[in-house]
Parts: sequence; C-alpha cells; structure tokens
Amino acid sequence: MSRKILILNGPNLNLLGVREPSVYGTTTLIDIERACGEVAARYGATVESRQSNHEGALVDAFHDARTWAAGVVINAGAYTHTSIALRDAISAVQLPTVEVHLSNIYAREAFRHTSMIAAVCIGQIAGFGWRSYTLGVQALLDHLEIPLLVAPDE
Amino acid sequence: MSRKILILNGPNLNLLGVREPSVYGTTTLIDIERACGEVAARYGATVESRQSNHEGALVDAFHDARTWAAGVVINAGAYTHTSIALRDAISAVQLPTVEVHLSNIYAREAFRHTSMIAAVCIGQIAGFGWRSYTLGVQALLDHLEIPLLVAPDE
Amino acid sequence: MSRKILILNGPNLNLLGVREPSVYGTTTLIDIERACGEVAARYGATVESRQSNHEGALVDAFHDARTWAAGVVINAGAYTHTSIALRDAISAVQLPTVEVHLSNIYAREAFRHTSMIAAVCIGQIAGFGWRSYTLGVQALLDHLEIPLLVAPDE
Amino acid sequence: MSRKILILNGPNLNLLGVREPSVYGTTTLIDIERACGEVAARYGATVESRQSNHEGALVDAFHDARTWAAGVVINAGAYTHTSIALRDAISAVQLPTVEVHLSNIYAREAFRHTSMIAAVCIGQIAGFGWRSYTLGVQALLDHLEIPLLVAPDE
Amino acid sequence: MSRKILILNGPNLNLLGVREPSVYGTTTLIDIERACGEVAARYGATVESRQSNHEGALVDAFHDARTWAAGVVINAGAYTHTSIALRDAISAVQLPTVEVHLSNIYAREAFRHTSMIAAVCIGQIAGFGWRSYTLGVQALLDHLEIPLLVAPDE
Amino acid sequence: MSRKILILNGPNLNLLGVREPSVYGTTTLIDIERACGEVAARYGATVESRQSNHEGALVDAFHDARTWAAGVVINAGAYTHTSIALRDAISAVQLPTVEVHLSNIYAREAFRHTSMIAAVCIGQIAGFGWRSYTLGVQALLDHLEIPLLVAPDE
Amino acid sequence: MSRKILILNGPNLNLLGVREPSVYGTTTLIDIERACGEVAARYGATVESRQSNHEGALVDAFHDARTWAAGVVINAGAYTHTSIALRDAISAVQLPTVEVHLSNIYAREAFRHTSMIAAVCIGQIAGFGWRSYTLGVQALLDHLEIPLLVAPDE
Amino acid sequence: MSRKILILNGPNLNLLGVREPSVYGTTTLIDIERACGEVAARYGATVESRQSNHEGALVDAFHDARTWAAGVVINAGAYTHTSIALRDAISAVQLPTVEVHLSNIYAREAFRHTSMIAAVCIGQIAGFGWRSYTLGVQALLDHLEIPLLVAPDE
Amino acid sequence: MSRKILILNGPNLNLLGVREPSVYGTTTLIDIERACGEVAARYGATVESRQSNHEGALVDAFHDARTWAAGVVINAGAYTHTSIALRDAISAVQLPTVEVHLSNIYAREAFRHTSMIAAVCIGQIAGFGWRSYTLGVQALLDHLEIPLLVAPDE
Amino acid sequence: MSRKILILNGPNLNLLGVREPSVYGTTTLIDIERACGEVAARYGATVESRQSNHEGALVDAFHDARTWAAGVVINAGAYTHTSIALRDAISAVQLPTVEVHLSNIYAREAFRHTSMIAAVCIGQIAGFGWRSYTLGVQALLDHLEIPLLVAPDE
Amino acid sequence: MSRKILILNGPNLNLLGVREPSVYGTTTLIDIERACGEVAARYGATVESRQSNHEGALVDAFHDARTWAAGVVINAGAYTHTSIALRDAISAVQLPTVEVHLSNIYAREAFRHTSMIAAVCIGQIAGFGWRSYTLGVQALLDHLEIPLLVAPDE
Amino acid sequence: MSRKILILNGPNLNLLGVREPSVYGTTTLIDIERACGEVAARYGATVESRQSNHEGALVDAFHDARTWAAGVVINAGAYTHTSIALRDAISAVQLPTVEVHLSNIYAREAFRHTSMIAAVCIGQIAGFGWRSYTLGVQALLDHLEIPLLVAPDE
Repeated sequence: MSRKILILNGPNLNLLGVREPSVYGTTTLIDIERACGEVAARYGATVESRQSNHEGALVDAFHDARTWAAGVVINAGAYTHTSIALRDAISAVQLPTVEVHLSNIYAREAFRHTSMIAAVCIGQIAGFGWRSYTLGVQALLDHLEIPLLVAPDE
Repeated sequence: MSRKILILNGPNLNLLGVREPSVYGTTTLIDIERACGEVAARYGATVESRQSNHEGALVDAFHDARTWAAGVVINAGAYTHTSIALRDAISAVQLPTVEVHLSNIYAREAFRHTSMIAAVCIGQIAGFGWRSYTLGVQALLDHLEIPLLVAPDE
Repeated sequence: MSRKILILNGPNLNLLGVREPSVYGTTTLIDIERACGEVAARYGATVESRQSNHEGALVDAFHDARTWAAGVVINAGAYTHTSIALRDAISAVQLPTVEVHLSNIYAREAFRHTSMIAAVCIGQIAGFGWRSYTLGVQALLDHLEIPLLVAPDE
Repeated sequence: MSRKILILNGPNLNLLGVREPSVYGTTTLIDIERACGEVAARYGATVESRQSNHEGALVDAFHDARTWAAGVVINAGAYTHTSIALRDAISAVQLPTVEVHLSNIYAREAFRHTSMIAAVCIGQIAGFGWRSYTLGVQALLDHLEIPLLVAPDE
Repeated sequence: MSRKILILNGPNLNLLGVREPSVYGTTTLIDIERACGEVAARYGATVESRQSNHEGALVDAFHDARTWAAGVVINAGAYTHTSIALRDAISAVQLPTVEVHLSNIYAREAFRHTSMIAAVCIGQIAGFGWRSYTLGVQALLDHLEIPLLVAPDE
Repeated sequence: MSRKILILNGPNLNLLGVREPSVYGTTTLIDIERACGEVAARYGATVESRQSNHEGALVDAFHDARTWAAGVVINAGAYTHTSIALRDAISAVQLPTVEVHLSNIYAREAFRHTSMIAAVCIGQIAGFGWRSYTLGVQALLDHLEIPLLVAPDE
Repeated sequence: MSRKILILNGPNLNLLGVREPSVYGTTTLIDIERACGEVAARYGATVESRQSNHEGALVDAFHDARTWAAGVVINAGAYTHTSIALRDAISAVQLPTVEVHLSNIYAREAFRHTSMIAAVCIGQIAGFGWRSYTLGVQALLDHLEIPLLVAPDE
Repeated sequence: MSRKILILNGPNLNLLGVREPSVYGTTTLIDIERACGEVAARYGATVESRQSNHEGALVDAFHDARTWAAGVVINAGAYTHTSIALRDAISAVQLPTVEVHLSNIYAREAFRHTSMIAAVCIGQIAGFGWRSYTLGVQALLDHLEIPLLVAPDE
Repeated sequence: MSRKILILNGPNLNLLGVREPSVYGTTTLIDIERACGEVAARYGATVESRQSNHEGALVDAFHDARTWAAGVVINAGAYTHTSIALRDAISAVQLPTVEVHLSNIYAREAFRHTSMIAAVCIGQIAGFGWRSYTLGVQALLDHLEIPLLVAPDE
Repeated sequence: MSRKILILNGPNLNLLGVREPSVYGTTTLIDIERACGEVAARYGATVESRQSNHEGALVDAFHDARTWAAGVVINAGAYTHTSIALRDAISAVQLPTVEVHLSNIYAREAFRHTSMIAAVCIGQIAGFGWRSYTLGVQALLDHLEIPLLVAPDE
Repeated sequence: MSRKILILNGPNLNLLGVREPSVYGTTTLIDIERACGEVAARYGATVESRQSNHEGALVDAFHDARTWAAGVVINAGAYTHTSIALRDAISAVQLPTVEVHLSNIYAREAFRHTSMIAAVCIGQIAGFGWRSYTLGVQALLDHLEIPLLVAPDE
Repeated sequence: MSRKILILNGPNLNLLGVREPSVYGTTTLIDIERACGEVAARYGATVESRQSNHEGALVDAFHDARTWAAGVVINAGAYTHTSIALRDAISAVQLPTVEVHLSNIYAREAFRHTSMIAAVCIGQIAGFGWRSYTLGVQALLDHLEIPLLVAPDE
C-alpha cells in the first residue's frame, strides 16, 4: 500500500505567511509541508504538497492522486464553501480525505460556515493554525491504520 | 500553570460503546479517557473526565473547572446544536476549549450541521472516532504551548 | 419479555389539572397513570410513571428504562420541540416509544408544530386529552404484540 | 344521535396491500374497514368507508356525511399536505374528525411533515399501520361520549 | 358579442348560507346568482352559475365557457391559493376574468393571503360579502365596455 | 349620520394621467374625484379627495376625517406595501375603509403583492383602473347601508 | 411483456394547438399521439393517450395502467408542480415513467421550476415542443430494453 | 396578598461581576439582590433571589413560587432565547412576570434578538445594567398596584 | 450639562386615550408628559414632549434636540419597525436614547417584533402602559448619572 | 435642453461633516454642492441641491424637478433601502437619475445592502466619499451626452 | 450551415465508467462520443467532444465553438448548479444548446436540483444514462431542422 | 509609488462588443483599455488590462499585481456573484480595488444583485457602460491621492 500523502491547498494559500498575518500567522506553506513531512516520517510515510488558485486544477490533482496517493489532506480555502466539483472529485476518486482549515471558520463570516466537501471527507480539523495540517496528517495515517514506526513515548 | 485538562461529555455519551455501534463504534468513555490520559502524560499533563445528560450540569462543570483546569476538550453531544448556555459558559470562563465529535456531524442530519459553541472554541475536530479526543488533547496542549516531555520521534 | 411500560412526562406536566384548564382539562397526572394502568392490566402489563422538568432527567430516565421496560409512552411537553438530546436517547436506547400529546399541537402556536422526537418514535397520538395516553399504551402493547388477556368485547 | 362513522380515504389508498408493502404492509382497505367495524360494534356503532383519488370527491363525501354521520376518521393521503379545500370542508361541516396515517409521516420526506387539516381536526394518530384506524375510531367514539356497550375488561 | 357571464364557484361554496355564518353570512349561492342576474340585466346581460368541489371540473367549466361566455366572475375558494391548473385555464381560455372573495382574505390565515390566479385576472374584489359578486359582475361588464341599458341615476 | 366620504390618495398619484400611461391610463385624479362624486350622489352622499406624497400627511388626514367622514376609500400607492403607521391609523380611527388600486398589483413586481393595510380594511378592489374607485365608493356606501336615492334600474 | 405505453396528459393540454400558441405552438394532442405512435411502431410497440383536467382522474389512469401498460410518458401540466398524489401513484404503481414538458419550464415563472414527480420518474425531457414526447417514448422504450424492429440507419 | 417577589436568574449569571466585565460590568448578583431589596422595601415588599444553570431548576423554582410569591422578575439568560419549557411554566403558574436583561440584547448577536418568553410576560426591560432589575421590581410592584409606603419625593 | 429630556412620540400616539383603549388604556399623551415631568423633577430635570405622524418630523426633532437635550425617551410607534432614517438619526445625534412601548410588542403581530432602532438605543422598556415612559425617564436619568435631589425613601 | 441638475439628499445628510465622521468624513453638504458645481461648470451645466428628512418631501422635489432639471443625482440615505414611493417617483418623472452613496453600503449592516431605487436608476456609484457625488454628476452629464466645454486634458 | 456539434463535458466526467458506477454505470466518455457520432451520422452531422475540470476552460470552449459549431450538447456536471459564467457564455455565444445529465438530478441531493444554465438552454434531458446524450444530439438536430438522411423506419 | 493600474476583466468580457449588444453595447475591451489609458495619462499613470474566463487566473493576476500595481479596477463579470476566492485575493493582496460593471446589475436577474467582492473593495460603479471603467480609473487615482498633471478645466 502506498505511503504517500497528498497535501492539497486551494486559492490564496500560496500567499500564506504574507496574507493577513493577524488572522493566519507567519508560517509559510513550505514550513507546513516540512512539518507534515516530519509527522509522516514517524509512520514511514511521505507527503507531497500541491497548491493552485484554480478550482479545476485542484480537481485535476485529485484525479492524478488516484495512482499514487494513500490519502489526501485538503485545505480547499475559498472553494471549501462553493465547489461541488471538488466534492464530486472526492466522491469519485475515493481516497480517504481529511479537511483542514488554519482558522476557526465558524468564528468568521457566515458564508464561511458551510463546507461543500465536509460530508464526503472522513473528518474536519479547524482552528489550530499550521497544526491543523499536522493533526490532519496524523489523523489520516491513523485512519489508514498505518502504525507508528516508533511508539511516540519511548 | 495547571496541567490538568477537563474532558467534558454531553448527553447520551455515557452509553458509548452501546449506542448505535454502527455509527459510533464499541469504544467506551472509559477507554477514551485512558487514551487521552496517555497522550497527556507525554506532556506531563493529566486529564479528568466528566459526563452528564444535564445541560445545566455541563455549565456547572465548566464553572468549576475555572479553579483547576488549564483547558477543556468538550464533546457536547446533542447540546452542541442548541445550547447558548454552554456557549456563554465557555465565553465567561475563558478556558481554552477544543470542540470534538466522534462522527462527522456534516455527514448526518441537517440539524447537526450547526454548532452553537464552535465560534467560542479554539477549533474543532470531528469524524475520527475516539481519536477525535486524543487529537483534541494534543491540539489543546500544543495551543497551551506545553512542550512534549520526550520528543515523539526519539 | 418485560411487561412494564414507562410513562415519561416532561416539563410542567406535574401541574396538570391546575395549569390552563381551558386548554388541558382538570385531570391530574395521577389520574392518567391510573387510567393507563387499567388499560395495561387487560394485557397483563403494568405502567410506571415519571415526571421531570429537567431535560437531563428525562434522558436519564430513558437510559434507566433500558434494564426493565418493554416500551415507553412519552409526553415530552415543551422539550418535544427542542430536545435533540431526548431524540438521541430514544435512538440509543432503542425501546419502542410512542409520542403522545394532550392537546392538538397543530392547532396551537407555530413553534409547537415541530417535534424533534417524532422521527424516532413508532407513532404519535395527539389531541384526545388524557385519552391520548391510554390510546398510546394500547398502541404500544399492540405494537409489542402482547395479546389482550381477555378479548375486549367478551 | 347518529352512531354511524364515516371512514374517508384519500388518493392511492385503494392500492393498500399492494403499494410499497415495505412501507405500508399487506393489509387492504377492506381489512381495515372490517377491523374498524368490530371496534365500533363494541359501542353499538357502525362504520361506512369511502375512498377516492379525487380531492373534490372527498369534499363531496364530507358534505354528504352531514346528514347521516356522527363523526369522521380521515386518512387524506397525499391531500393531507396540500388540500385547503378539505380543510375548509371539515370546518364547514363541523363533524368531529380524527386524522389518521398508516405510517409515521414525520419519519418520511419533509413535504409530508405538514398537515393542512390537522388544525381543524380533534387530533391525529399516525404510525401504527392499520391500527391507526382502529385507535382513531375508538378515539372518536370516546370523544363523542358514546359509551362502550360492554366494559372492555369484563 | 355574447352577453352571457359565467359565475364560477369553487369548493365548499355550495354550503354557503350554512357554513360558518359568522364568517360568511347567511346568503346562499342561489341568492347571489339572482342578485348578479339583476345587475347583469341592467346591461342586457345574463349570468349562468356553476359550482364544483372538483378542481378539474372548474377547469372543465372554464374550457366550456370559451364557446358561449363573454367573461367570468370566479370565486375559486380554497383553490385560489393552490391551483396552477386553474391559472393555466384562465391564461389559455383568455376570457376576461374577475376574481372575487366573500371575506377579506388578507384578514384570515396566512395561507389564504396568496392567490395563484390573481396575476392572470383583470382584477380582484374581496371582503364585501355577496356584494363582492355583484360588484364583480359590474366591473366585468364595464371592462367589456357593454353599456348600461338605462343610466343608473335616471 | 355623515354622508361624506374621504377619498385618500398616496404618493405619486398627483401625477395620474401623466405617469407611465401604458400602466395607469390617462385619467387624472380630478376625473376620478368627479366620477366618484357622481356615484355618491345617487346615494345622497358627497366625496372629498385628498392627496399627499407624505406618509405622515396621510395619517393626519385619517385622523382629521374622524370628525366629518362616514368612511374612507384609500389608494395608498407605494405606502400600501410598507406603512404600519397607516395601518395603525385605520385601526385607531375606526372609520370603515375600502382599499383600492388602479392596476392589478398581483401582476406587477413581487414587492407590490403585500398590503400592510389590507387586514384592517373592509375589503379590496384592484385592477379596474379609475373604476376601482367608483366601485369602492359604491361598496363603501353599501357597507354603510346607505340606500340608493333612486333604484338603479328604474 | 406488454408493449403498450400510456401517454398521460394533465390539465389544459386538451387545448393544445389553441392555447397561447406563442408559447406552445400549433400542434394538437392528437398530432402528438400520432407522432408517438410512429416512434413506438419502430419498436413494435403501441401508445394509448389519455387526458384529464382532474388530478384524481390522472391518478385513476395510473392505477388502471398497472394491468396493461409497460410504462408511462407523462406531461402532468400544472399538477407537475403541486401533486403529491400523482407522485404517490407513480411510486405505488411502479411502472417506469418518463416526465416530459413541451416548454422549458426553467425559463418560465419560478413556481414552474419545481417538479413534485421528478424524483420518482426515470428522467425528464423538457423544452423540445412536441418532440419532448417522441424523445420520451424513445427513452422509455430504450429503458425497457425493447429493441428496434429495424435498425434506424439501414 | 403576598408582598414577596422572586428574582430568578438563569445560566452563568452566578459569574456576574467576573464574566466579560466589559459587557456586563462588575456588579455581582448579591449586589443586585440588595438593590432590589431596597426598592421593594419602599413598597413594604421583600425579594428572594434564586439562580441556576439548569433549565429544569428554573421551571421548578417557578412552580415553587406559586405558593408564596406575588410576582417574578426574571433574567433567563441564555434560556431566554430557547426555552419553551420556561415559557410554559410562566403561562401555567400565572404569576405576573417581568423580563429583564442587563445588556441591550438587540445590539448583540442575532440569536439573542428572539425571546421565547417575552410574549407571556407583562413587559421587558433591557440594557440598563443592574438597574434593569430595580426598574423591573418597581414595574412589577406598580403593576400589582401595591402602593409606595412613602411617596418617593417627600 | 443640560437637564432637559426630549420625549418623542411617533405616529398615532396623538390619539392616545382614544385609540383602541382595550389595548392602550385611557391615559392621554398629556397625562404621560405630566407624569414624566414629575419623575424628572425629583432629579432636578425637565421634560419636553413632541409628537408627529411624520417620519421626517421625528428625524428633524432628533436633530433639533442636539442643541438642548441631555437625552431622549422615544416611543416611535409604527416607525419602530421600519425606520432606518430614525435609526440613523439616533446614531448621528448621539444623544443617549431609551426606547419605550406602551404595550408588550412581543405579544402582538409578528411584524411588531422587530425594532429597527433597538440596536442604537441604550435599552428598551415595553409593556407597562404609561409607566413604560416614567420608567424610561428614570432609566435615562440614572444612565446620565444625574443624582436624585432627595433620596426617594426619605 | 436644460443643463440644470438636481442633487437630492435624503435623511440625516444635513448633519454631514458632523455625524459619525469616522464613517462619513468632515466634508459638509455645502462643500459637496460646490464641488459638484465645479464639475458641472466644465460642461456648461449648473447644479441645485435639496435636502430633506421627509420621504414625501423628496418625492415632491422629484416631481418639481420635472419642469426644470435635465437629470438627478440622488443620495436617498436611509430611504434608499425602504422607499417604494421614491422608486415610483423616479419611474413616473422619468428624469435620468444616478444613485450615489458616500460609503460602501455593502461593507455595512445587511439591511443597507438592498436598494429599492437601484433598478430604476441609470447606475450607482458608492464608496468614494464626497467624490461619489462628483463622479455621479460627471456620469450623468456624460449619459446626457452633454459635451465638455473644454477637453479636460488641454 | 455547419453540421458539427460540440459535446461539452464538465468536471469529473473524464472519470466516467470508473466513478461511482452504481450511480453512473460503466460507459466511458469515449463510448458516449461514439454513440453520439452514430446518431449524428444519420443526419449527415458530426460531433466533437471536449471535457475539462476547469470552469474557465468550458467557457473558452463555448467561445471557440462560435466559429465552427451548429449547436452544443452540454453536461456541465457540478458546474450546472453554480456557474453563472457558463450561463453567460451560452447567452453570449447564442448557439442552440441542450442540457443533459446522466442521472436524474432531482432524485439526488437538494443542491443538485437547481440548474443555473437551464433557463438559457433549449431544453433538458436527464436520467437516461448515456442515452441522455444521444437523445440530446437528436433533439438538437431536430431543433436545427436538419433532416434525417434516411427515414428511420425504412 | 507605482502609477500603474491593473484593469482586470472576468469571464465572457472578451466577447464585449459582440455579446448581447442590446445589453452591453458595441464597445470592445480594447476600446475600453484605450479610454482608461487616456484618463490615466492625465494623472501621469498607465493602465494594463488582463482578461480571463478562469476564476483561478483572475486570482493569479491579482497576486501578480502585488509587485507592480498601485491599484486595481475590476469587472469580475459572473464571478462577482460567486467567487469567495477572488474576495480573499483582494483581502490578501491589499491593493486598493474599485469594482465596476457595464450594466446596472440591480436591474437584471436577482442572482446578479449580490456581489461577493463588494465588501472588500473601496467602492462600486455600475450602469454607465464603458464609462464605468473610466470613472473607476478616475475614482481609484483620486483615492490614491495622485494629482492630475494638468487641472481638468484649464
């Protein structure tokens, strides 16, 4: 079984560390990818990160992942709230998917309270900044029943 | 600073392991408390678990925690969707609080898609079964910036 | 199989016979319990009645009934319209449950037209005063396929 | 005072025992009429059953009943949810009327949760299969204060 | 040009003079027809009245009127609020049509505030009891530019 | 008893005969007043017409009419759809009031389908151009049971 | 297996070819029946057409078709948007049913955008004038896996 | 007639003086009780204060007050917006009740703009901090027509 | 600092003591002004009362009050529910304002449950008849921290 | 053709430069009129400014402008969101009208997001402070195809 | 006139034959294209198929088709329900367009019941699997009045 | 400070001058760019125009503009009404942005009345055809306080 995880990032997340730091902090997407890689490594897994501002490119990336990924951690950004196409891609590809958000979307504008993709993901993790991603990777690997290489408290 | 965490469970969760296992699995609340205790121990922290079917008793427990807890992991069960009283308690007590759910509430009935308490919590973790709790404890301790006693990958 | 039936009454029903008699009549809860007992007796069954103004106490009573009751006749009063916790308790405990109301809730204020528990009950009986309860006991015992001890028309 | 009861059935109920038996069971309308007749007989009453797929014919039947019936037990089927004409007929004719449904309409599609006629009936009984009718006849006769010929428990 | 007017009455209006007289008064449909006939006579016109409890029969009557009527005065009763079929019949037949109501529908239940047919009628007259009909006949004949035989104030 | 009728006209009706003639025709407010006067004369009554673009002035006119008018025919124009103040004035003054509209408001924009004043008027007449006013005067005088001086068909 | 198809037409469709030709064209129902018959003939099938302005009669026709038809092509006209009774008839009778409309209902008034029967039909075809029917017959026969007698392109 | 007033406080009000002081100020519930007592004393009346985080306990307190109180001043806190049980208790017990709020609930979150109990109280006073209570006591005593012992301005 | 208070009254309140006395009582606006004056006098303050049926005149009065008033007690009557202009005037002028209502607006028609001005006032007092005004004056003066000249209970 | 432009200002705009300067800035209405005059002068046009807090007075001003103005620049203030009367005035008078707002109404409260008059204006300009007016004058004059006297960049 | 038809496919349809076969069957997009080609061939027409997961690319394809296509058969997939851009492209390009769907979208989730593009297409065909496409091609060619090369029943 | 302005155009605007000229006129995007350039030149500024049918490409263009543009004039076309991604890009990039529309979006279909981006722009200009752009450029440069090189009226 593949031990590669796709970390998929939606629109504007390329600006992370720049954009509205009072809301999102100063960590960049590369920092997040590295932190996720470290968590994955404890399970003998690796991560590969993609970002696009194009809804269609995110759908393409999901399709592409069918051939190589064991699961997906997705922060669909603004498309979270509107994209039925992404929802259909998750249903179609049937890779286990964890939805993550940097900020607590329920404490922001009302139009960010709805997720079109939540119902087809395993679960959601939101509000813990970059740690939402590392918790997501961990949750996904546990869900896949891939064991830790070394027990965490040894 | 206190290193005790309150794990607060709402209505019907005392039946966990019994109730609709096809939805919630066979793990009991005591199993979850133990797993959370193990995660907390890696940070030199401890957990204390309470459960009640009474909305008022959950509010009382929150008030009580002001004097001894560093933070709260809450699965408010059915009161998640209706309790303004619990929301006010979280605002008033101002302990950092993480909202967890066993199942993906967004893949269930529409009346479970709304959380009255989400906007006053740090973040939410939902859909990972009992692991939602252990991820929640970990997320809370990281948020409190309490360091791991032993690095997890050594 | 148990032949004991729980008759569970929600908030303000302890005032029955006092409260707004123009709406609810002068029969008390004890009168109702006795009438239900008489109907049950024809089936060789007995009833036990509980009342509480506390949502949590009603949930507790449901949990408790798991060990001794064959089914439940519930008049959840005001909690009918708001309590997801009670709905979850009915789902979790999985005792056959009949929802009853003294008055025709559809001829009253709009916020009384919705029942949170209807979808998880066998059926509803509303609008026949205290006879809603005796019809409910009869409907429950018929549903449980417990035969009449004596044919009613002999 | 008349001791005849009209049992009025709406659209598609002529197919009862055939249509979607997993939802409605195998009892036919004639079986139901006989069972109702037996219940009525204990009160010295009789029943007369009518069925039509035409909304107007149901209104006509209501008008006709003014001259001979003591009350009505109605299962308006699909017209329950849309017919203001039927509601007006019940108001106009002013015969005591009990609304019955075979299935628990609150556990089905959302458009079946509303009843246009509920507010002008004495009460509703839903979810007990053909027994909804016999309970309805009993509730109506009790409401009319027509006594049992023989006490049921003798 | 024809000088015959169809007066079309919907469900339950056959009970007029009997039904809820506190709302609708004691005038019967025959009284109304006669009063309308008197008004029409001043214009050299005649009226013909039809009533049915069947939505389809009202549509049929509209179709039939194409061959002999100059216009229609309609009190669609309960079908006013729900019948798209009647609306389509009015559009299709293209006879000038005046909508009348005995009572002020805007002072009654909310579901009577909407008229499906209003938008395809010339105008509405509501709230004047049986005089709504005579005003309606007069309005229709004026609309048809049929002159009074004798000026009303001579 | 007074035989004077107030004809009250709301905003923009002073432009009648000028404004959007394709919708409203070329008759002016003075023409309408004269036609109403002729109808009233047959009953031995007179009319007095007022127009204002000010909501408050319409309320004032209503208050003023208490001392001299037997009833009111009102075309509140745009304030029909928004003015609770006018509704309260009609309730407070308790003069019988008939609501009229030149055009069929139900065949226009959705925001014109609601009347704030309809529920406190005797009835409504809409869609017959300037004849809505003359029918309104006639309906009001009939409602007041003021007899025709000369029978119309003599 | 039967090769007879019921073509069922709802209210006002008897006026086809007359009614609002700018919307519906000049083809009559008989023309449509003939065109459908020609399409069916290629499959060795026949069609039988019924029309009624009565909702109940359409339900009756559906029930009747159980004994002789292989499937139904329905244009329910105005009842499309309101009839739960027709929806229940389709569910109960369980003949494969294709919903057709002459015009594009989504380009007309908002109340024509909803179909009560769509969810229980195989599929919908709308907007192609009388060809909606012939396409519907073809789609139904293909769905029934009845082969063409002669390949269409030979 | 009793001159004792119940001051009933809902969830989280026990934290008053602690909780979000920027919103609610530093006055405690005991301070408020004393201030209310002083106002009541001028009328020869006394107050008794209760607080609970339990909806059921508030209902119980209302029931209990039937035997000794002349009226109630209630700040139902979060239950204001959701509790039909409390509304029913007020209706059932029929003690004159004044609703008070410390802050202007209409200037806060939208879900605090609705009061389930407002319609069954005499009136509401909101936005004046602890003075909402003293004004409430005064309004209640005036409503009960209990005279001031000493005229306030002497 | 000024000790003059504007008492501003909206549409139809000039009819107070006349209009629907079963709802509003027999007290006139002049009686209310005098009672308010007496309360104000205890604080060394005076009141000035204005009434208009014109929304614009109420806005004008607010603007005018900027130069001489210390605060405003407003009963905006029907404009309470619709006037954004009045809301903007209160925001712009920034005089402390107390909203009062004679009757309990939450126990009346639904369109009276919304207040456009509540969010920009200090607080609301509703349901105590003319005493709503005197309580309002007292609440305003306390809010302005203007001391009582003589302690009320001496 | 007239070269005079009416600049029409709604409620509270007379306070401009005083009212909530953090939202609206310190420019007064006279400053704005002068700036508009300067822009108009480049086209050989003049402006005339009116302000009223009365909805009816704004309607009157529109009617009056028919005789002398070439077009209107309107900032209807709070009436923007509620006034159908003003909308009707714009339709009736048929002077080209440009809607302007000082602030970005879409970044303020939800009830300011709707404009009743937008659909009958040429266009809207909002969010540029006093420059919204000068841009509005320019847009109106360009729309009227009145040429600049001197090319702006010479 | 061109006899080339564009078959345009939206997001995830490239996975057809793979994705959720229980819903969509095992036919691939290439199979569909071939079947459409065969239908077109009977009319002397050809088809060209495009698919993209990018909303913008679908808009581009529409623009491109202006120069070479006679019409379009579109299955916009998930963009059906959200894309105003695609709707605008259809309006702008003004090629006759037929909307098709594999499954009956009205029997799926509520958010799939709305089509943004339906109102600007000729018609819709949904629910017949790959045959929705071939029926669509046929309907389009008939609409274009392109004759069959060989009559189908010869 | 940069004096370059990005003019960003959304989907279908490349067809400008072709598409529905009765709505949008015959001016092309190149004409608009030139006109904007002329306005900008008066301020010593330049414009650069981009168009894409891809939502993602518009987001990309916004990101790119961070390094070279002083501000943005955007006509997001259909994405105006749906794109949270574009809204987030505007928030993230924090370049002053003016929203423009060719037509009056409030006089078109209801789904065009909402703008997702309005709340994060400086202001909106809509309804003036290509002049909306030139007014937008002017408004942006004024907002940036870039002075005219030559006073416009010299």
